Amino acid sequence: MLAATEPTSTLLRVAYDGTDFHGWARQPAHPAGPAMRTVQGTLEDALSRLCRAEIRVRGASRTDAGVHARGQVAAFECPVPIPCANLVRALDDLLPADVAVTDAWTECPAPIEPRHHNDGKHYCYRIRTAAGRDPMTARYQWLLGRPLELAPVRAAAAVLVGTHDFAAFRSSACQATSTERTIFGVELREHGALLELHVRGTAFLHNMVRIIAGTLVEIGLGRGDAGRIERALAAGDRRLAGRTAPAAGLELVEVSWPGRTLAGACASPRGSAPGLGAG
Amino acid sequence: MLAATEPTSTLLRVAYDGTDFHGWARQPAHPAGPAMRTVQGTLEDALSRLCRAEIRVRGASRTDAGVHARGQVAAFECPVPIPCANLVRALDDLLPADVAVTDAWTECPAPIEPRHHNDGKHYCYRIRTAAGRDPMTARYQWLLGRPLELAPVRAAAAVLVGTHDFAAFRSSACQATSTERTIFGVELREHGALLELHVRGTAFLHNMVRIIAGTLVEIGLGRGDAGRIERALAAGDRRLAGRTAPAAGLELVEVSWPGRTLAGACASPRGSAPGLGAG
Repeated sequence: MLAATEPTSTLLRVAYDGTDFHGWARQPAHPAGPAMRTVQGTLEDALSRLCRAEIRVRGASRTDAGVHARGQVAAFECPVPIPCANLVRALDDLLPADVAVTDAWTECPAPIEPRHHNDGKHYCYRIRTAAGRDPMTARYQWLLGRPLELAPVRAAAAVLVGTHDFAAFRSSACQATSTERTIFGVELREHGALLELHVRGTAFLHNMVRIIAGTLVEIGLGRGDAGRIERALAAGDRRLAGRTAPAAGLELVEVSWPGRTLAGACASPRGSAPGLGAG
Repeated sequence: MLAATEPTSTLLRVAYDGTDFHGWARQPAHPAGPAMRTVQGTLEDALSRLCRAEIRVRGASRTDAGVHARGQVAAFECPVPIPCANLVRALDDLLPADVAVTDAWTECPAPIEPRHHNDGKHYCYRIRTAAGRDPMTARYQWLLGRPLELAPVRAAAAVLVGTHDFAAFRSSACQATSTERTIFGVELREHGALLELHVRGTAFLHNMVRIIAGTLVEIGLGRGDAGRIERALAAGDRRLAGRTAPAAGLELVEVSWPGRTLAGACASPRGSAPGLGAG
């Protein structure tokens, strides 16, 4: 327990159905139009009401419009002490149905910057390979409607693993100065007509997971093989990679922290930061 | 293949996310307000555009606002011959993302009345027993947030099976003249924090599955036991049953037909009605 006078950060794990949001990041208000609905803005509005102060949060990942999350992490400095359980329960009532705070850790040594203090992210990209639409899963999948040849997809995915220059796998709008990133693993899981691509790595470039998904799907449809990934990585040329897969298929599953995951930190005494002390 | 001059019915299997619909049944237009969005109305609008004629469909079940379906069945008489595959593909483009026609059978002996010609329905009611909200499944589950004692639920469910007077398990708005119905089975399936109640039976009274789900949940929370079901059935008194569970948890999984399921009929030569000839 830190003394009340020391500044502390509060961490939140945030889940959302991104379909009806213009992404995570709060958008600058347009003078003529209504404010764009964003996850960050929605969360900040609820926290500001709860804390009776203007609250700004910092997210671990600026997910795009339509992208979902179960394990987004946000940090902020709470001006009033609120026990974790009360915070989660109060936000349950204040937040709309498509966003929820599923865990909270208060009294973490401030300031925590989720974008810089995390040591990895786990994304899942979901592809429906069956023909025909399914209204109950359409919000969360790329409706491809065609089967994929998985052996070449696995071979191509293996080439992505490791530390590479991923310049070919970022959108033209990406503003990162370095394009070197590390991918820990790309795992394929089949559940009937649903194919899941699990991608784990350090920070990701803008649209990187969606371009990886789009490229692997093209390879699964016979357009190229593992060599295509090799050439794209070597040339750093966006045109050698595949299309950007639709946002609906992407979910930020988890953000991890040095030493252990945020979920692991749940089990630790309330008030300890998730792994930051040990990292 | 029937001669072109004989009248034929077309059967559709329809899936929908009921969240943003005012139920299946087309609502009479209100003079002052906008038309209510219904699944039937949405489907009829798409079919009318496709067939260039005013099309009216007949559904197997008038699902309530917020109730979902994977296996709703609708029949109509198509004034122009359209091959099944073309019909499904064209409707894919004409229908919004939250409703889809997943199968079609043309040239069935007319007229087919899905409400009267089916011989059973399979509903699933989904309950989230874990604490905390999950924005990705909230549209399809009752967010109960508490664990249930399943042994008494199973015992109570067994009492419902068979032919009974279900007067205690219908809404006050139900207009059925007879309240005798047959339940073939009530099955519980656990998937982690998700509990599924699978209810199979003949026709159901208005809100019957949701009142069954609400009563079984109360029993799982310790409010009564199998004897409560016995007393409610014997007395025919709505007040002895539990609350009506929320619409979001309910899905019409399948409508069955004499001799075989609609899904089974898929495998039969195109143009044959699903089991009606054999029934």
